[in-house]
Amino acid sequence: MRPSKRAADELRPVSLERGFSKHAEGSCLVRFGDTHVLCTASLEENVPGWLRGQRRGWVTAEYGMLPRATHERMRRESTSGKPSGRTQEIQRLIGRSLRAVVDLQALGERQISIDCDVIQADGGTRTAAITGAWIALRDCLTWMRTREMIKTEVLKDHVAAISCGIVKGEAVLDLDYVEDSAAETDANFVMTGSGGIVEIQGTAEGKPFTEAELGTLLGLAKGGIARLVDLQKQAIA
Amino acid sequence: MRPSKRAADELRPVSLERGFSKHAEGSCLVRFGDTHVLCTASLEENVPGWLRGQRRGWVTAEYGMLPRATHERMRRESTSGKPSGRTQEIQRLIGRSLRAVVDLQALGERQISIDCDVIQADGGTRTAAITGAWIALRDCLTWMRTREMIKTEVLKDHVAAISCGIVKGEAVLDLDYVEDSAAETDANFVMTGSGGIVEIQGTAEGKPFTEAELGTLLGLAKGGIARLVDLQKQAIA
Amino acid sequence: MRPSKRAADELRPVSLERGFSKHAEGSCLVRFGDTHVLCTASLEENVPGWLRGQRRGWVTAEYGMLPRATHERMRRESTSGKPSGRTQEIQRLIGRSLRAVVDLQALGERQISIDCDVIQADGGTRTAAITGAWIALRDCLTWMRTREMIKTEVLKDHVAAISCGIVKGEAVLDLDYVEDSAAETDANFVMTGSGGIVEIQGTAEGKPFTEAELGTLLGLAKGGIARLVDLQKQAIA
Amino acid sequence: MRPSKRAADELRPVSLERGFSKHAEGSCLVRFGDTHVLCTASLEENVPGWLRGQRRGWVTAEYGMLPRATHERMRRESTSGKPSGRTQEIQRLIGRSLRAVVDLQALGERQISIDCDVIQADGGTRTAAITGAWIALRDCLTWMRTREMIKTEVLKDHVAAISCGIVKGEAVLDLDYVEDSAAETDANFVMTGSGGIVEIQGTAEGKPFTEAELGTLLGLAKGGIARLVDLQKQAIA
Amino acid sequence: MRPSKRAADELRPVSLERGFSKHAEGSCLVRFGDTHVLCTASLEENVPGWLRGQRRGWVTAEYGMLPRATHERMRRESTSGKPSGRTQEIQRLIGRSLRAVVDLQALGERQISIDCDVIQADGGTRTAAITGAWIALRDCLTWMRTREMIKTEVLKDHVAAISCGIVKGEAVLDLDYVEDSAAETDANFVMTGSGGIVEIQGTAEGKPFTEAELGTLLGLAKGGIARLVDLQKQAIA
Amino acid sequence: MRPSKRAADELRPVSLERGFSKHAEGSCLVRFGDTHVLCTASLEENVPGWLRGQRRGWVTAEYGMLPRATHERMRRESTSGKPSGRTQEIQRLIGRSLRAVVDLQALGERQISIDCDVIQADGGTRTAAITGAWIALRDCLTWMRTREMIKTEVLKDHVAAISCGIVKGEAVLDLDYVEDSAAETDANFVMTGSGGIVEIQGTAEGKPFTEAELGTLLGLAKGGIARLVDLQKQAIA
Repeated sequence: MRPSKRAADELRPVSLERGFSKHAEGSCLVRFGDTHVLCTASLEENVPGWLRGQRRGWVTAEYGMLPRATHERMRRESTSGKPSGRTQEIQRLIGRSLRAVVDLQALGERQISIDCDVIQADGGTRTAAITGAWIALRDCLTWMRTREMIKTEVLKDHVAAISCGIVKGEAVLDLDYVEDSAAETDANFVMTGSGGIVEIQGTAEGKPFTEAELGTLLGLAKGGIARLVDLQKQAIA
Repeated sequence: MRPSKRAADELRPVSLERGFSKHAEGSCLVRFGDTHVLCTASLEENVPGWLRGQRRGWVTAEYGMLPRATHERMRRESTSGKPSGRTQEIQRLIGRSLRAVVDLQALGERQISIDCDVIQADGGTRTAAITGAWIALRDCLTWMRTREMIKTEVLKDHVAAISCGIVKGEAVLDLDYVEDSAAETDANFVMTGSGGIVEIQGTAEGKPFTEAELGTLLGLAKGGIARLVDLQKQAIA
Repeated sequence: MRPSKRAADELRPVSLERGFSKHAEGSCLVRFGDTHVLCTASLEENVPGWLRGQRRGWVTAEYGMLPRATHERMRRESTSGKPSGRTQEIQRLIGRSLRAVVDLQALGERQISIDCDVIQADGGTRTAAITGAWIALRDCLTWMRTREMIKTEVLKDHVAAISCGIVKGEAVLDLDYVEDSAAETDANFVMTGSGGIVEIQGTAEGKPFTEAELGTLLGLAKGGIARLVDLQKQAIA
Repeated sequence: MRPSKRAADELRPVSLERGFSKHAEGSCLVRFGDTHVLCTASLEENVPGWLRGQRRGWVTAEYGMLPRATHERMRRESTSGKPSGRTQEIQRLIGRSLRAVVDLQALGERQISIDCDVIQADGGTRTAAITGAWIALRDCLTWMRTREMIKTEVLKDHVAAISCGIVKGEAVLDLDYVEDSAAETDANFVMTGSGGIVEIQGTAEGKPFTEAELGTLLGLAKGGIARLVDLQKQAIA
Repeated sequence: MRPSKRAADELRPVSLERGFSKHAEGSCLVRFGDTHVLCTASLEENVPGWLRGQRRGWVTAEYGMLPRATHERMRRESTSGKPSGRTQEIQRLIGRSLRAVVDLQALGERQISIDCDVIQADGGTRTAAITGAWIALRDCLTWMRTREMIKTEVLKDHVAAISCGIVKGEAVLDLDYVEDSAAETDANFVMTGSGGIVEIQGTAEGKPFTEAELGTLLGLAKGGIARLVDLQKQAIA
Repeated sequence: MRPSKRAADELRPVSLERGFSKHAEGSCLVRFGDTHVLCTASLEENVPGWLRGQRRGWVTAEYGMLPRATHERMRRESTSGKPSGRTQEIQRLIGRSLRAVVDLQALGERQISIDCDVIQADGGTRTAAITGAWIALRDCLTWMRTREMIKTEVLKDHVAAISCGIVKGEAVLDLDYVEDSAAETDANFVMTGSGGIVEIQGTAEGKPFTEAELGTLLGLAKGGIARLVDLQKQAIA
């Protein structure tokens, strides 16, 4: 039995609240159970230096946590002087995941910055962030289309993410903090609406895992991501 | 007529939502109109080095803004490498304001850290932060009392804050962003429930102001803070 | 009786020594008793990026303390990696105070940087700095006028500053370090030669202060600043 | 045909040169073709603060590149002020991979720091680093055993790593820089001597990849890592 | 003819003003012509970590320049985030020079920090700083002896420093800024009262210099330093 | 007898291995005994801002040490946030030394960056670095000449460097780490192929040294550098 009483392949209650932020071109407060992440999309009319003049745009992401989003208060990253390795790893992952479904040519020479700020954390913040960021990005692109800034389709597909893991020998979907802390293997999957794999990150925390276990985790993830994509479709309907 | 149609001495709609954060010992989402600030209180069982062994506690505050809390996206402070002068000025003000109503001896050798994070900004973030922080601090102290960590009264009084300003020649209360940008004089007042002044910061943005104008602003502030203190009382009732 | 034997409304001996620095376009060593601050004005033929092309100039200030200006040696800010919150608060105050009496259009698209470096500290360094910085700025503008770089009047008025406070229940003017450490209320006032208020910063260090006490402090400040403006007039005569 | 004329499942020439460094307790210059990484193991008689008093040791890793290890000179990280996100990601990966085969209890309350410095880069620096780091770590442990600092077996298994990718539609093993730049999918695998998976990181650079492709890449990796483990065995024989 | 009309072996007017700083245990404002450096000595009752428990003390130095000490305003080092290479080079030189004449055992487990802050610069700031720092250090030691903190002689000799250089083919002593900028060879000498050499730093700015030229410069330096030591003796008489 | 059994005027075995790095325009692994430094020359087609438009080029140097190049592991400079004072001092010295034999006009508006990275340290890293850097620079210039990027002679002479010191009262050449740690006087000399002095840095670590001792050290250095220049000539033959 999982601590949350969920079935092995059961997601936590997920909600996607659009338009949470008054100022952003697109925004979404995503909740995976007690994990709450505010995703905003900000349009900027210039691109990073290395991309200038190439008639292509860019989508990038930044990730942060409020100091008391977690059980113990964490030091604010602005006072420690630099984003931690973990923060940078996550924001690079979010950016790559979104770019996998964006036609950067069609976007034009502009940048969309996605900020994913964890208001409350209970495991799976990066997967919630990716899932909510897709909504913020999509609404930003709709905002641009309304203003005739883009003409052709920029967004090629949905993208969503979920964690899986092996906890006490059992493969389970969408780990909360308690399960995450106890997992022998921890894996994050990012997949598109049409089922393509964008990113797999699997780590043995304790003993190494087998090819068969990897297959089981991948199966769980496919099911979970299909449901997240459905929820994205409902949210934008 | 004010852009928001308010009377000169009228506050924006104010709400104080307690217990917004699952993990913090005390928390409050405070809204002054479209300005939304999440205040959390975190109890830590040690004090800064310079206070050790003195049988007194400490209350400190940190302030941050989500990058897209504002109309234009701002650079994240963790990537710029240090909190800005404005950020430091505000967090020092919040800390001083709260300590003015706290009996640090009665708190015992512990620190309470108040984090005030602006989720959405529309002027007056520092005054909203102080007003909401008092609730978070109060609920943290209640949490401690329930656990018999403190015995005597730690909190001596309410504290709340409001901005006033002279806009187009007229003295007005609780400026929003549009008024704030146009104000000739901008002043922030921090006062206790019993009407004592904790802090005054008045700045002429354009031409210098007179003693009489200072009096008018102080009068507006007294009224506004009295109403904020009433709202604090209702919130904790 | 004050530790320095001064009357409640008595300034410390003040001197304003012009031309202290060989290289600067304007300079002044200001002394408020044992508080000594070197103020230099440096003309730069370009403005900050956000002001470019607007046919307006800028006046900014930086503040520093020599490590052994104080009773205990302080860590050098260049080794701690960034200016402290206090330093930034003070330099922002000095800049705002000077800009309040400068016609930035008349200055033309140039920047004057005022450096205020505390050679020796005994309380009131920020108020001494503002008072001396006005002289350095004025001499820099005279230097420019001699070279026909400016034509119309850039400086609209004098500006000077003084601290007041409530020490052992009595309101006093121009606190030295000993009084400052013991003050229940501490307030800094910046006013123009014609008596307009540019900035008020009043803080209750212990118990909150009343409206009546604020009035008394303001009265002391008006008298003190009038005398400082007289001394500025004598210095430039 | 691959640019290097290698078969799809062929490694580059691999060498493991032990004892490259005079001072380190263990060291190895590992070469995967033109990728050369110097790995050193340094024994330190204390552990990070969060581990103190727990009778367990720690193995950590740091990763760096000489500025001209790459085709274009890169900025030295000590002048940019902090390790980049990529650097941190890699050094966390190396540390996790090694700890997966270390009995931290048996190590005792000590830390072994593995430095992996890229002398010359031609793709696959992180996989070469892990493979060589295992040798440096193993020789450091032998050095300790000689001095009777450890008694039981600390190293539980071999660990090695290899990259795979899909380049022009074909799955290939051990990508060099030219292939890496053109890969549609890029994956790194870390596995033990007994074939357990320690870490999988698979990223679609262009279009998403399928479950079948993941299977093919995993198959290639298993073969490659088995050969690397054989080379490790020869090196220490 | 030198720009300053001085003879080749002539120092600028030198003054050593003791007790310039109210708070420091020892202080000296040293002037070499228009180069003015404030040197303060601060006694601290603990030593750097690496020296603890060795019954020896330490003398260290820090060096800074006020932003407008020079002809063009320089960026303040606290805002650039770290002391420059030049600053660090100079402060290491000052520290080494003073330690050469100090008996660190006799000092006891304490540190004396010498701060050398350039109020106005016109060439030769490091040599003026060393010469003045000796006075500040000496007065700090006298202060300690008065309080019976030290018993035996801590200061073994005088130390002073001077620059020499080859300007337009001629060897000259004590270069001011104009000469320094034009020098083909620039050398700094630190010597003791008894004529021992503590440090030589000679640099060819243009073409290399010869052994004979080095000899000439050394001869000039010996004469100059002898006069500086005389001035130190007069100052403390 | 020296610990290494060398005669007082004997160099350690020196080797200069050209073309060590595949990517750099010029490179050399220089070995002075157990001190091994990799020097690479990187051509960049732009110059620092302050040199732009002056039709002159620039040669600069950076210096680093692998963390375990030394007996005890040192903290990586990228994690400490900035190059140490020692590092900056050395890289400034290397840059100055090379520029002394380069015709910057003839180089054209380009920069050559020399990276000197210590792979293993046993004293004398800066002198080895200068000696090897000359080879890397020379090969970079040859590379440019082959591509007709430069026409006239850019390199005016050889430059090499050696340390000398007084150890247990005896003047010796090319100190290794053991001697360096025990030296009473430590001096580094940089000289050209034609015997001109580019830089002298002599420091008394214990008691001051005399003019006669300086002469002896200079004599040793002249001999040592003549042999290093011979080895450079053989290496490029």
